[in-house]
Amino acid sequence: MASRFETVSFLSDYGLQDEFVGVVTSVIRAVAPHVTVVDITHGVPAHDVRAGGLALARAAQYLAPGVVLAVVDPGVGTDRRAVAVEVGDREAVFVGPDNGVLASAVAMVGGASAAVELTDPAFHLPAPGPTFAGRDVFAPVAAHLCNGAALADLGELVDPAQLLPGVLPVSRTEAGKLVAEVLWVDRYGNVQLNVGADEIEPFDEPLSLALPSGVRTASRAGAYGAIGPGAVALVVDSYGLVSIAADRRSAADELGLAPGDTVILAPAEGGDGDGTSAPGGGHPGHTSPVSLRSRPPPRP
Amino acid sequence: MASRFETVSFLSDYGLQDEFVGVVTSVIRAVAPHVTVVDITHGVPAHDVRAGGLALARAAQYLAPGVVLAVVDPGVGTDRRAVAVEVGDREAVFVGPDNGVLASAVAMVGGASAAVELTDPAFHLPAPGPTFAGRDVFAPVAAHLCNGAALADLGELVDPAQLLPGVLPVSRTEAGKLVAEVLWVDRYGNVQLNVGADEIEPFDEPLSLALPSGVRTASRAGAYGAIGPGAVALVVDSYGLVSIAADRRSAADELGLAPGDTVILAPAEGGDGDGTSAPGGGHPGHTSPVSLRSRPPPRP
Amino acid sequence: MASRFETVSFLSDYGLQDEFVGVVTSVIRAVAPHVTVVDITHGVPAHDVRAGGLALARAAQYLAPGVVLAVVDPGVGTDRRAVAVEVGDREAVFVGPDNGVLASAVAMVGGASAAVELTDPAFHLPAPGPTFAGRDVFAPVAAHLCNGAALADLGELVDPAQLLPGVLPVSRTEAGKLVAEVLWVDRYGNVQLNVGADEIEPFDEPLSLALPSGVRTASRAGAYGAIGPGAVALVVDSYGLVSIAADRRSAADELGLAPGDTVILAPAEGGDGDGTSAPGGGHPGHTSPVSLRSRPPPRP
Repeated sequence: MASRFETVSFLSDYGLQDEFVGVVTSVIRAVAPHVTVVDITHGVPAHDVRAGGLALARAAQYLAPGVVLAVVDPGVGTDRRAVAVEVGDREAVFVGPDNGVLASAVAMVGGASAAVELTDPAFHLPAPGPTFAGRDVFAPVAAHLCNGAALADLGELVDPAQLLPGVLPVSRTEAGKLVAEVLWVDRYGNVQLNVGADEIEPFDEPLSLALPSGVRTASRAGAYGAIGPGAVALVVDSYGLVSIAADRRSAADELGLAPGDTVILAPAEGGDGDGTSAPGGGHPGHTSPVSLRSRPPPRP
Repeated sequence: MASRFETVSFLSDYGLQDEFVGVVTSVIRAVAPHVTVVDITHGVPAHDVRAGGLALARAAQYLAPGVVLAVVDPGVGTDRRAVAVEVGDREAVFVGPDNGVLASAVAMVGGASAAVELTDPAFHLPAPGPTFAGRDVFAPVAAHLCNGAALADLGELVDPAQLLPGVLPVSRTEAGKLVAEVLWVDRYGNVQLNVGADEIEPFDEPLSLALPSGVRTASRAGAYGAIGPGAVALVVDSYGLVSIAADRRSAADELGLAPGDTVILAPAEGGDGDGTSAPGGGHPGHTSPVSLRSRPPPRP
Repeated sequence: MASRFETVSFLSDYGLQDEFVGVVTSVIRAVAPHVTVVDITHGVPAHDVRAGGLALARAAQYLAPGVVLAVVDPGVGTDRRAVAVEVGDREAVFVGPDNGVLASAVAMVGGASAAVELTDPAFHLPAPGPTFAGRDVFAPVAAHLCNGAALADLGELVDPAQLLPGVLPVSRTEAGKLVAEVLWVDRYGNVQLNVGADEIEPFDEPLSLALPSGVRTASRAGAYGAIGPGAVALVVDSYGLVSIAADRRSAADELGLAPGDTVILAPAEGGDGDGTSAPGGGHPGHTSPVSLRSRPPPRP
């Protein structure tokens, strides 16, 4: 019998208009009544594994010790594997589909020490149909893990190195310009780039931003409220990454930016700055299986 | 003093933009601090008693033992009754308006053994106005039930047979065709019909679907991910019912389907399949006071 | 060591599409695992301090004893103060930015007895950037308060009289007419005015309502369900305030009303009632630093 957990941190693309989240929570509590379920978010866009994986990675180092349940699962019912992934010496166990949604978060908190494919039906609910693995597979498994089930009880152990990696875009320098990609647009319209604060330090102000919609210039600002009316600025966000922001307006709406868009940053004098240059959308970033940003591995 | 409960499972059409859900939860915890409130969903469309009743019925067999609070209550403040309905030997108590929203779920978990109209104001909060029964009547009653109040304490006992039934449409066969109705469109755009997997077994593939927007053909698929690009298919969903689905697209948006629409299923060779036949919308289904699908009564 | 708390009641404009709420909740539980977080609402419109303050004030008297965390914080990272405000003899502690969002709720439950600016970084998380004070400042402070930290531990005590007041519009009488303002439109489209039930008692029915979109007449109704089809009516809502409502329709959509709009109420025979008079929007209400409505101070 392994250690018990008190918390399931739960992220999904279920939304809140249906009863999916409530049913998963109820199943967890039916099997493990001592557990508290903390909803990380259920607002991941439907089927968007990348967005779910990024949200989980942003949250990972702040989560309570215990089980982390992440269900963004367009392949439910196909031969994609259902897995549980242990981190450290059972400091956390991540549960979900092996489609990349767990990978970046697992990497953020130290990497996988063991993994299992959830093949033993004794830990699942009987299912009238195969489409709701959150309820029938992942929730009961998460609860049994909280009750002290060992990873090896749940099915066939698998090599953690064989789990599907999270594929995140890395920025690159090209002719003195920084070719970046939009990772995230938050509810306020702030646009997070895959660029660390230090990467734009060499650039004099203002910077030019080559966007799919044209070229804009922007300076740095220390806070949203320090951005002038009508302006957009570069703000180091709460993850240490560079974001494009405006004060009480949506920079994303104003600039027409969405996750995956390319943004090319350069000193303004290095760009032509007339708004007519080729849009950044023509320079897709490379992708590479890495975690968000290299940091000392925090504990979940 | 009857048995105590640890959980209130809470469903409503309150949405999450206002503080309604938070206030109801706070009132429950003020009266019964030991209780955990599990949110089933608050995304039921405003005033939609049928949709709320169906969501509750889908969730019912998975809920923790305890109080089930369901508030979709367009008649609040009128002479509609506020009730509590006991199931089994106090395995669960459903609390809400007597407008049908509780009925299908109660039937799903075994039927009502006792019921009470919530007429004793000693168990309510003083109310500056009559429009928020969730806060002023249902929440404190739910909490007092969790503290061990007996049904008979709360008001006048009523005959469970006199409670308003949930009226659900039943499918029917007509000239070899199956006349069905859309029960639910979920956040992914999957379209659940009031048709069990066994009911379409006799039909050869592909099937024709006569919809309000015209006729489509569809085959069965074992999972959403097994549906070809651009296609729609029939998938047995997680409730054992037939749903019309697409892979990472909304079948409902694509086919223009909404709850209550009629869908007529038949073998494709039995339909004309040219997309110009009379739309299914002209054949309204019958309704009958039944529960979702006949299954052995599970415990909540 | 001061008394401990079991509950953090949490309101914000974070929305639920991102992981902000989940991360704040996780931070609280990491510092104070015994605490339950009750979500009041996170649907406050982005940056809308007034709407957040009103929602908190409506909820205040129903909240569990403990910490009340309210984060609507467009000035995050600027020199706006982060504060904790004690009510009564530590019956509740409100935590949030000193921008008015806490003020009306604090007034509703008895007023501030002490306040502190949250200047001691020992109670904060290290932050890669300054934009997420909910996670890095307010959540750990709320949790430490639940663990028994005293107000004076958290930073510099400040005079509660120097906290930014909540500025709420008061209605006024002008030539026998009542000049009111829309406080709130709820998810059902009910339109709450800053008018108590007693204030329209002298007016004969029907009343005329001068709105930005023209003049309408309306009578009183005792419940939404008692309003006739196609009509709008005045209903005393669950806060004792007058609301403009319709039966299973959105009065706000139908009348084009939004928070902040002016509505002038008068007996219909006192108005011209022809729908062509000058719209109410031309008569902005005065504002004054008051609480919602004068009531005996309830305990949170």
